[in-house]
Amino acid sequence: MSDAGEVEGVDAAVVAEKVAAAQAAVAASDDVDAWLSVGRETDVTPEPCFPYLLGFDVVWPTAVVVGPDSAAVVLGRHDAPTARDLGVHEVHPYDESIAEPLREVLDGMGAERVALNYDRDDVVADGLSHGLFLQLRDYLPDREFVSASALVRRLRGIKSDTEYERVRAAAEETEELLAAATAEWTPETTEREFAAFLHDRMTERGLDSAWAWDYCPTVHMGDREVGHTLPADHTVDEGELLHVDFGIRRDGYASDIQRLWVRGDVSDGLREAFRDVRAAIDAGHDVLGPGAVGHEVDAAAREELTSRGWPAFEHAFGHQVGRAAHDGGTLLGPEWERYGEAPRHAVRPGEVYTMELGVATEWGYVGQEEMVRVTETGTEWVVPPQTALRSL
Amino acid sequence: MSDAGEVEGVDAAVVAEKVAAAQAAVAASDDVDAWLSVGRETDVTPEPCFPYLLGFDVVWPTAVVVGPDSAAVVLGRHDAPTARDLGVHEVHPYDESIAEPLREVLDGMGAERVALNYDRDDVVADGLSHGLFLQLRDYLPDREFVSASALVRRLRGIKSDTEYERVRAAAEETEELLAAATAEWTPETTEREFAAFLHDRMTERGLDSAWAWDYCPTVHMGDREVGHTLPADHTVDEGELLHVDFGIRRDGYASDIQRLWVRGDVSDGLREAFRDVRAAIDAGHDVLGPGAVGHEVDAAAREELTSRGWPAFEHAFGHQVGRAAHDGGTLLGPEWERYGEAPRHAVRPGEVYTMELGVATEWGYVGQEEMVRVTETGTEWVVPPQTALRSL
Repeated sequence: MSDAGEVEGVDAAVVAEKVAAAQAAVAASDDVDAWLSVGRETDVTPEPCFPYLLGFDVVWPTAVVVGPDSAAVVLGRHDAPTARDLGVHEVHPYDESIAEPLREVLDGMGAERVALNYDRDDVVADGLSHGLFLQLRDYLPDREFVSASALVRRLRGIKSDTEYERVRAAAEETEELLAAATAEWTPETTEREFAAFLHDRMTERGLDSAWAWDYCPTVHMGDREVGHTLPADHTVDEGELLHVDFGIRRDGYASDIQRLWVRGDVSDGLREAFRDVRAAIDAGHDVLGPGAVGHEVDAAAREELTSRGWPAFEHAFGHQVGRAAHDGGTLLGPEWERYGEAPRHAVRPGEVYTMELGVATEWGYVGQEEMVRVTETGTEWVVPPQTALRSL
Repeated sequence: MSDAGEVEGVDAAVVAEKVAAAQAAVAASDDVDAWLSVGRETDVTPEPCFPYLLGFDVVWPTAVVVGPDSAAVVLGRHDAPTARDLGVHEVHPYDESIAEPLREVLDGMGAERVALNYDRDDVVADGLSHGLFLQLRDYLPDREFVSASALVRRLRGIKSDTEYERVRAAAEETEELLAAATAEWTPETTEREFAAFLHDRMTERGLDSAWAWDYCPTVHMGDREVGHTLPADHTVDEGELLHVDFGIRRDGYASDIQRLWVRGDVSDGLREAFRDVRAAIDAGHDVLGPGAVGHEVDAAAREELTSRGWPAFEHAFGHQVGRAAHDGGTLLGPEWERYGEAPRHAVRPGEVYTMELGVATEWGYVGQEEMVRVTETGTEWVVPPQTALRSL
């Protein structure tokens, strides 16, 4: 393969919607004149904004520049036909260096304050490498650089209609696959076999896993350590749980849910644990809505669970789902240092969250995870939540 | 999926070899006391050094610290068991913040000058995001930061025995797959069908493509535009060429070769074009060896081709192959601004390059690409080169 460039399938519908939304966001900003996203060799080091602001992989250094009423791409000459076919951006090809055409595009927009993709806490808003930052500092010595965090949080968080349709379709297909897998379940089925069944169906349908393939699904049968566990040779004993954490990615968008089944009779203790987990999720869900601050939602769920005598969970209550299962931006999590600013932002209509927590019991891990979309007035379920234990 | 972490299959053999080589490189450096690689959510934003310095994906911020005679990893508590199982690094888990344990590890190594993964030109040495750089600047205010480019170029470029074995195996399997595909070829076979045959075999064998799936292989039948071309409905007419640019990735290592076949009689013009392309590759190959400077190798091939009356190719003559088809580091390319420093470095024993160029003719694209390993005294072919046109 030469370095003369290559492209992958272009998602024109999404890119057109998102670039229009990006222009509106820049126009509405008091803070920035243009939003500059720069990446290269994106199959080795992806720029997380490129899939929706550009839509194809590039080899040479490439800049997407969004102004208040126009959008441009500066890219290697070999990639220019793809950008022209897409028809969303003004196309500025170069042969040897991006510097001069990039300056001209920014001058054409009158852009002095330029937002770049860096953020200490939010990985999907931190796609600019430090080496490229140093290069931009040289190429554009007289511009002021600011973080594009707020723009990314808005653009990636608020799903366009096409995007939400895809997230919903991914969640629905996840439920379908889980229904098919549990229909095939027998008392002899091991975790490994259950996972393999799902993987086979995914391969047949050309679906990716929403996170690392070997850990998606995670399957827990009965009482065992939860977390970093690959599916193993356990089976479900009488009265025990099958717990599955699963998501797929189709057409570039992910799902992420957890479901529970029980074999045979449900003991009172298990019923209570399930009720408490549901109550804690409901408590967080009650607070979730437009304007809610991330850590307040987490605290409501956390307090409900601990007030019922269970230990607190060691992760965030909820995260956004979109192009990735962990889609960055506002986090429904505690104000722990490793989460940085993410739990301090306010929830916005159009964002999609998954809410999750669980408790360890002698019957297995009672874990629940439910996806919701934030609306103008509250939330709506992406797929119906699990409100009762299902029988195997 | 919670944010409590996950891991993928660990490549213990390679990680042990590479971390040992990294320690030796730091010990030999006059310039740095320790090499610090930092990444997070590596399935969204990969740190290109992590696959060989750590070996598994992480969710929370994670630091691999290599000193002259020890190596440590500072990582989220949930990932610690995986690191302990691996047994290559000292393991320092944290719950809420990486800052304090990271400072302690660097203090323990007496590290004042610390190399970080940033580079203006080399994407595989530029895995540190600007946001994480700002965070490190805060966490480690009294250390001096320098670029780890030279360390990365050495570590990634010089293949360990296990790594080279894998590159060679990938190249051999690429040849096998091409042989199978051409054995099935008929005059009715289209580019699309030829590519689909290879994709089906790859899927059966669980092989990844060495670059974007849709463009790997690229298949050209007869006289048509070369470059950004997906396989289409062309077939090979009498006297025309089948040109394939193809590579696979198996066990984490890639191949990248081009091969040519002709249908029916070979015209004199085609024979001459093939001879000229071969001569240009040989001219570059003659200069390639330990100590050769990248752009000098490119110039030798380029001059040979243009002296024979052909236009110069618009890409670099050669690039390294390893974990990726474009593996960064020293480039056998011209001193064009977009290549930055990459063509100015010297070639080292243990590096693997692929050499490629071609010319457009009325019979199709006469393109050749051959992989070589640099030895202490010269080079050796990874797989035997194509020295004659093959018949379909």
